[in-house]
Amino acid sequence: MALATDEVAFVVRLCADHGVPVIPYGVGSSVEGHVLAPRGGISLDLSGMNRVLAIHADDGDAVVEAGVTRKQLNDALKGTGLFFPIDPGADATLGGMAATRASGTNAVRYGTMKDNVLATTTVLADGRVMKTGGRARKSSAGYDLTRLLVGSEGTLGIMTELTVKLHPIPEAISAAVCTFPDIDSAVQAVIQTIQLGVSVARIELLDALSLKAINLFSKTTLAEAPTLFFEFHGSPAGVAEQAETVQAIASDLGGADFEWATRPEDRSRLWQARHDAYFACLQLKPGCRCFPTDVCVPISRLAECIAETQADIVQVQIPIALFGHVGDGNFHLVVLVDRDNPQDMAEAAWVGTRVVERAIAMEGTCTGEHGIGLGKRKYLTAEHGEVAVDVMRALKSALDPQNLLNPGKILPER
Amino acid sequence: MALATDEVAFVVRLCADHGVPVIPYGVGSSVEGHVLAPRGGISLDLSGMNRVLAIHADDGDAVVEAGVTRKQLNDALKGTGLFFPIDPGADATLGGMAATRASGTNAVRYGTMKDNVLATTTVLADGRVMKTGGRARKSSAGYDLTRLLVGSEGTLGIMTELTVKLHPIPEAISAAVCTFPDIDSAVQAVIQTIQLGVSVARIELLDALSLKAINLFSKTTLAEAPTLFFEFHGSPAGVAEQAETVQAIASDLGGADFEWATRPEDRSRLWQARHDAYFACLQLKPGCRCFPTDVCVPISRLAECIAETQADIVQVQIPIALFGHVGDGNFHLVVLVDRDNPQDMAEAAWVGTRVVERAIAMEGTCTGEHGIGLGKRKYLTAEHGEVAVDVMRALKSALDPQNLLNPGKILPER
Repeated sequence: MALATDEVAFVVRLCADHGVPVIPYGVGSSVEGHVLAPRGGISLDLSGMNRVLAIHADDGDAVVEAGVTRKQLNDALKGTGLFFPIDPGADATLGGMAATRASGTNAVRYGTMKDNVLATTTVLADGRVMKTGGRARKSSAGYDLTRLLVGSEGTLGIMTELTVKLHPIPEAISAAVCTFPDIDSAVQAVIQTIQLGVSVARIELLDALSLKAINLFSKTTLAEAPTLFFEFHGSPAGVAEQAETVQAIASDLGGADFEWATRPEDRSRLWQARHDAYFACLQLKPGCRCFPTDVCVPISRLAECIAETQADIVQVQIPIALFGHVGDGNFHLVVLVDRDNPQDMAEAAWVGTRVVERAIAMEGTCTGEHGIGLGKRKYLTAEHGEVAVDVMRALKSALDPQNLLNPGKILPER
Repeated sequence: MALATDEVAFVVRLCADHGVPVIPYGVGSSVEGHVLAPRGGISLDLSGMNRVLAIHADDGDAVVEAGVTRKQLNDALKGTGLFFPIDPGADATLGGMAATRASGTNAVRYGTMKDNVLATTTVLADGRVMKTGGRARKSSAGYDLTRLLVGSEGTLGIMTELTVKLHPIPEAISAAVCTFPDIDSAVQAVIQTIQLGVSVARIELLDALSLKAINLFSKTTLAEAPTLFFEFHGSPAGVAEQAETVQAIASDLGGADFEWATRPEDRSRLWQARHDAYFACLQLKPGCRCFPTDVCVPISRLAECIAETQADIVQVQIPIALFGHVGDGNFHLVVLVDRDNPQDMAEAAWVGTRVVERAIAMEGTCTGEHGIGLGKRKYLTAEHGEVAVDVMRALKSALDPQNLLNPGKILPER
């Protein structure tokens, strides 16, 4: 609503007048230090801006304030036959998800926030209010300011309203789990599925340690072995076709115990377990701190990247679980450390650096979906090169000359 | 290849040193004056940079020089099981298509250039060479420079290489034509199809005048009535399902003479006729000049937008054909005039302005896929507002402070 955006604009203008940094805050579920204030300033909590402003069912879009969470939006969509598919696990705000270019389990079929934000209302560093994009499904009218803002982590402007794409709830959904003799076979099954063009909705890999943690945490009795979680969306015939194809691929690679969940409550239980993986892993080492990291590589390099990463993992003492959205070539490490133990910290740094450098060397990225924040600034130049980082700095200076919008994030220190 | 990009960089640096504008050129198929030189300068012809540098079939991407055309890329993909779907009609260069954020008939299923360019090599205004994006399917690493360049019409940098997404050739393809008693029924059929979430590959509307022109030009015998062209991609069962659904919708709305083309040669003939619509229309008024325009609106407003536009068309003397990619809410007018006839010119201006203002008033865009160029600069502020246009100017100044890259395009005169 105009009023709330105006209030944000008023605060930002005051901060601009007094040289005070502004750090936007949603629910605090980001993991690269995005909401920290290394240069001081105010934390601008947008979680109260949580109105769903419009649902255009006929056009498949909704207009929301930035503080609306993904679950809240999906609740509001009940009865429309539509849903918002982007699901990073946490019940994050849509503003936060846009700011970090979030994705998650459904991205292999539905894309990431970059594909699902059509328009924004954004408060600029000087307090002016800008509209970007629009509700048409496509446009060639000028620079794509919407996609410049998506993933900019609050450093170029503060998104206060978003227009997001909605998708029809598929007529048929089925989910399945399947265990594999080793992680490489599981990864090969993913690669073959994607290369065949099967449009799976989700295809998630969890290693044995993640399954152990999930069983302990969620009281499930899943096999503690490398496992793929699948979900298929489509017409009944289409879903059956996809499922058959994938089951054949998996079986050829030693996949066993294919277990189907077609009832909504069974599917929910399955995906809840998957979403709990992160919190479950935290329990593996009580009192520990967690350094989550994520990388993404071209799918042809995924098996190699995971195998080399596993070879690192077995060399360290700290527990490290590996899981992720491997249909996109994206996987996570959950690295557990005792912060007061220098060896733990050294091991965590070693593994974290190596997986990022490996992903970049394989033409991948240092972060598939977490963002750069504070933690990954040091890799930005390795990934994009000096010239691109210079251009990013030039854009930042053009839009935020005083460097007051979430300063210290994304761009490396000079 | 490094050499060719280096040559472009050398030329651009020379031009920067001497204050000479640089206007990139591909095959010259753009329609909004993009390749004109209103402030002088050099035309930088990239059509000779036409090497396909790499095809990564396993990852579904290809690296091409900017001068590669879409047909050339698809020829190079033969035997891989993959294709590049973006098809604006003309056999444009991929560099030009990226620069104008092109789309075309397949966009409803496969997206536009914004969705299909993963990475670029770009020469900046000062001759530095920048890499943007990467080959991972997703990334949250920093500002999305790739999508800032896509649609920037050569004004922010000159793309010399692109990494584009490829898609699996569908197992089954079928196409159909269907005539309707009036244009509104045809549009309603499109709207219902899209709102049901049927993932048609193409869904094109042509008005009776377009069909008359096509029959004259292509020696076809299609009914000269409002017509939809459909194409379905998927598995055999999926395609059959989609086709059934759409045929039922069309029949309910008075659609008749459903004619199927499943043999490749019949499909090609059909789509060739569709692609010839523009050239066919030119023959309706020998010696005429054509002002093509395109707009795009949310699908819920499409019927209204087309009906009001038709009401304008019947009020003028000049022939105006209407057709387009209505699955996205996008349609074109082909406006034919005798340049020496002031009444023709006045009528063309009147219709052109009204359709754009109507689309913007309906939360649509002044151009779905042609770009702004010279011709539509005057609408940019009406569509995006003063603040967004100011931000576009700030980005332009940050990246091209001398205003030498395709100057005078996109941004309105102050």
